[in-house]
Amino acid sequence: MHSALEEANSCIARDEVPIGAVLVERDTGKIVAQAGNRTRELADPTAHAEMLVIRQHCEKLGVQRLPEYDLYVTLEPCPMCAAAISYARINTLYIGASDPKSGGVISGPCLYEHSQLHHKPQVVSDLMSDECGQILTEFFKKKRKLR
Amino acid sequence: MHSALEEANSCIARDEVPIGAVLVERDTGKIVAQAGNRTRELADPTAHAEMLVIRQHCEKLGVQRLPEYDLYVTLEPCPMCAAAISYARINTLYIGASDPKSGGVISGPCLYEHSQLHHKPQVVSDLMSDECGQILTEFFKKKRKLR
Repeated sequence: MHSALEEANSCIARDEVPIGAVLVERDTGKIVAQAGNRTRELADPTAHAEMLVIRQHCEKLGVQRLPEYDLYVTLEPCPMCAAAISYARINTLYIGASDPKSGGVISGPCLYEHSQLHHKPQVVSDLMSDECGQILTEFFKKKRKLR
Repeated sequence: MHSALEEANSCIARDEVPIGAVLVERDTGKIVAQAGNRTRELADPTAHAEMLVIRQHCEKLGVQRLPEYDLYVTLEPCPMCAAAISYARINTLYIGASDPKSGGVISGPCLYEHSQLHHKPQVVSDLMSDECGQILTEFFKKKRKLR
């Protein structure tokens, strides 16, 4: 989660909402992909950190499924990313801060409780949640001051 | 929806699940982007038809939002695509066949009923649903015979 936080921090310089994700090989603990949000830079509303690491590593391996990998993300995934995590067959999803406003895993639609999601990853939440939430709070506080 | 069906048909030759999507400019009725599923070809579990047309046109315009556009898709969008359609601020979503097994708009998590989705497109369902459903039924029937 430290590496995911570094990715979140790197978003700030790009004026992207600071959320970071890291994909880890379960057997070795090796980080195989990491990203922060790039929706502004790429003009792509789907370019969330989780989507970028999944797409990056699937493309590298030439596969659509990553059952031997875990995903660490600083903020609870939104419904789009929660579904993509299921489709990619991620083994365990580690979440930093929860996101009652826009989340889709433990908030709102709680996607993994529905049969329409055919794979349900293990979910571990509240991992370094203070640090993960604080970087977002400070980002939006500065944004409001600039207005 | 005829053009979306053509895109779905074009999936069959690529051995992709035949679902097609078309993005239409509301003012002119002009098709600005169209795609079929490419998850196999691109080794990308997020490469659903809806995601591809949204990403394609956002990139072309350099924007993250498409409020002046409608989306036609042959099958009810999954939760991932339903959320992406919301983030892209699509005006009206026209759905062919419904998808109780994997859908996320009128089935299962019914995403637009949750406050976590901040934009709720207009939804028109059951548009040429027989034709849109039939192409999928036939695709999977042939798949089963080949096994």
